[in-house]
Amino acid sequence: MIPYQVIRNKRDGNKIDKKILKEFVLSYVNGEIPDYQMSAFLMAVYFQGMDSEEILSLTRAYIASGETMNFNRFDFPTSDKHSTGGVGDKVSLVLAPLVASCGVGVPMISGRGLGHTGGTLDKLESIPGFVTDLDIERCCELLSEIGLFVASQTAKMVPADKKIYALRDVTATVESIPLIVASIMSKKLAEGAGSLVLDVKFGNGAFMKNIQDAQTLAKSMVDVGNLYGVPTVALLTDMNQPLGEYVGNALEVVESIKYLRTELIPPDFHTVTMTLGAIMLTLSGVVENILQGKQMLEKKLQSGEALEKFAEFISAQGGDANVINNTDLLPTAPECGKFPASADGFIASFDTTGIGMLGVEMGAGRKKMDDIVDPRVGFRFLKKTGDKVCRGETVAIIYGADISQVKFAISEMEKLVEFSSSPVEKPRAIRLLIDKTRIIQSEQEM
Amino acid sequence: MIPYQVIRNKRDGNKIDKKILKEFVLSYVNGEIPDYQMSAFLMAVYFQGMDSEEILSLTRAYIASGETMNFNRFDFPTSDKHSTGGVGDKVSLVLAPLVASCGVGVPMISGRGLGHTGGTLDKLESIPGFVTDLDIERCCELLSEIGLFVASQTAKMVPADKKIYALRDVTATVESIPLIVASIMSKKLAEGAGSLVLDVKFGNGAFMKNIQDAQTLAKSMVDVGNLYGVPTVALLTDMNQPLGEYVGNALEVVESIKYLRTELIPPDFHTVTMTLGAIMLTLSGVVENILQGKQMLEKKLQSGEALEKFAEFISAQGGDANVINNTDLLPTAPECGKFPASADGFIASFDTTGIGMLGVEMGAGRKKMDDIVDPRVGFRFLKKTGDKVCRGETVAIIYGADISQVKFAISEMEKLVEFSSSPVEKPRAIRLLIDKTRIIQSEQEM
Repeated sequence: MIPYQVIRNKRDGNKIDKKILKEFVLSYVNGEIPDYQMSAFLMAVYFQGMDSEEILSLTRAYIASGETMNFNRFDFPTSDKHSTGGVGDKVSLVLAPLVASCGVGVPMISGRGLGHTGGTLDKLESIPGFVTDLDIERCCELLSEIGLFVASQTAKMVPADKKIYALRDVTATVESIPLIVASIMSKKLAEGAGSLVLDVKFGNGAFMKNIQDAQTLAKSMVDVGNLYGVPTVALLTDMNQPLGEYVGNALEVVESIKYLRTELIPPDFHTVTMTLGAIMLTLSGVVENILQGKQMLEKKLQSGEALEKFAEFISAQGGDANVINNTDLLPTAPECGKFPASADGFIASFDTTGIGMLGVEMGAGRKKMDDIVDPRVGFRFLKKTGDKVCRGETVAIIYGADISQVKFAISEMEKLVEFSSSPVEKPRAIRLLIDKTRIIQSEQEM
Repeated sequence: MIPYQVIRNKRDGNKIDKKILKEFVLSYVNGEIPDYQMSAFLMAVYFQGMDSEEILSLTRAYIASGETMNFNRFDFPTSDKHSTGGVGDKVSLVLAPLVASCGVGVPMISGRGLGHTGGTLDKLESIPGFVTDLDIERCCELLSEIGLFVASQTAKMVPADKKIYALRDVTATVESIPLIVASIMSKKLAEGAGSLVLDVKFGNGAFMKNIQDAQTLAKSMVDVGNLYGVPTVALLTDMNQPLGEYVGNALEVVESIKYLRTELIPPDFHTVTMTLGAIMLTLSGVVENILQGKQMLEKKLQSGEALEKFAEFISAQGGDANVINNTDLLPTAPECGKFPASADGFIASFDTTGIGMLGVEMGAGRKKMDDIVDPRVGFRFLKKTGDKVCRGETVAIIYGADISQVKFAISEMEKLVEFSSSPVEKPRAIRLLIDKTRIIQSEQEM
């Protein structure tokens, strides 16, 4: 393997052999190939792309750079979900206990907030005592004992992705489908789950702004997962408005608890959660199809078993499980204020990235890697796209660290919500299901 | 200037502002921008290209990174030539004294052999005592006293090109017109000549294999030169066979001396030299047009004044000027052999790069930077493309370091020369003249 030739071949649009690609990646990780050759290669990939086989090889090379987990010794199936990130996306918090309560293990390695999007780890860590920094042994124990865990990635898993991601970040090579796919899929496949469902978001609050790009990304990830031997399905879901009602770390834990207590079931959040969960159950062989999966999950939700599993999970990871009965045990914002509708009409649209960035501005996310997140702040959206509103009616509640922050957020929110005098159609939460062989558009057929 | 944004802008096909580009280049030279960001930028330039204005800005930035020369204080015009490199291209050796003998100063910074092509410095250094490592003061003295110098580039001139070229070499970003143009033109423009003629070679012995690519490169260099304020003209010349008869360092000095003594005037070599020289005289205002220029040069050649200038030049740079009367003072190969025609017919074609590489193999060029060149070895081609040959007639003479090398070269040569039973047209040595506003195809109209 001659690094120069690998770069030139990719530059000229040729396919890179899997052994060569593996050696190239591993030599980079161990320092034999310098950053400047890798960055030239990454830019060549940006322009020339990669076919499914090459993306698979790249993903395998990433995985081979570090430790992996494996749960084959357990006598139950395992399945995991990945979301490409959004605003108000607390699906993992309820999905993991829901699916685990159906007898499918959920080994979940999650991330922190990135840009305008929230992160599952930040949300869970707003529960007093909750710990996400677990070693592989502890992860296996938790999976065996209670059927799920949510942990941060260890330094030993997929070091190639860490090193290459840092380089992409400063060389304008982040926005490349093959590189995004290898980065996401290597982390998920190294985790060792028996199957995978991908929540690929599109819209003004997603990394993929249009549905075509999201579909391309989803198809590529589904291909890589299945070629790797892990049954993988993707859903394309709408991120043109926050998912559910709450946005913010502790606030999304509150919403999750209310949901599992069946006190608050936002339709978009519910349909996304149930469909993702039903796919996991189907891929695991616990049910025959998505409809049966939804019915099973609905039962676990209504019976309180999923809530019980959530409590068990919180305790097991060091958190105070009493939060499920008393959400006041969570960090609470000292001030709040209402954002009212300025006229009679309908909610036309949200600037979802703007809402996420406003949250970051208030402390719900990080501007720099070492910023400390304020778990208390955020929003609750009582009205969503297509909802009728009367002048002065509350559209959103702002939860702030102090009164000036609340006032600032209310005035900013005016720029982020559009109203219409004529009726606006409510968006469909789920737009496409992509599996190994098919693309299904209708939710009824899924 | 934020390096990330410069990379992203170029990646997205945007034009980079000249101030930004200058800061980007200078920050790279002084170490503030790391190699990995520059290499990503270079790969983005490879794919997205640059317009004339950007190439000019890049060239200016390269020049601004180091020292420049300036000859405005002299009361004679100055002009220089650059060749993109070929096999048997000893034009500089005779052109510099020819033009200088017409009263136009020739300040020439030259290079060494690169890949399969020869280098003027290597050729001149085969003359006993000849020195090319001159400082700027000595260069100016020589120009003032004898009207020419041929020197190697100092470390202080265009350091940006040196650093960036080394990076391009290991990141597969050499083959990019804007980067090639900035690299060549920055070095030539930093030299301070009042005008410039470019010998852009095309064909199987040139870096540009086809005439279209050569034309694109030539047009871009002519634009940058003229936009910079230095009148610049390019000739597109054929490199589908070695130029003239001899290939090899001392051997090309021998041919140059024979030429200036008017004992051997190979037609292709003569027409290229006369036309390049006539353009330099025209651009310098010494003659009104190329035809007049050729007449003046022909007079200096026939009168022996150019030969005398060559001797003066050799002496001034420390060499033994007696070589012009006795070429045996040059290093001479101990062995030689003949490469005969295998059948009656015509010379169809040469693999010119192959011939250059065979020369390198024999020691005439370098495989590694620190290899020492053997000035003695090489070839003389008695027959050129289109020439009639009889079976057994000598096509080329091989000059080798020992008999086994000569035998090896003769057998290799069989693969590098093609014969035809039917007549073959002789190629035109000059194909196009490109100046600021025109492209001229006919040599008569030039």
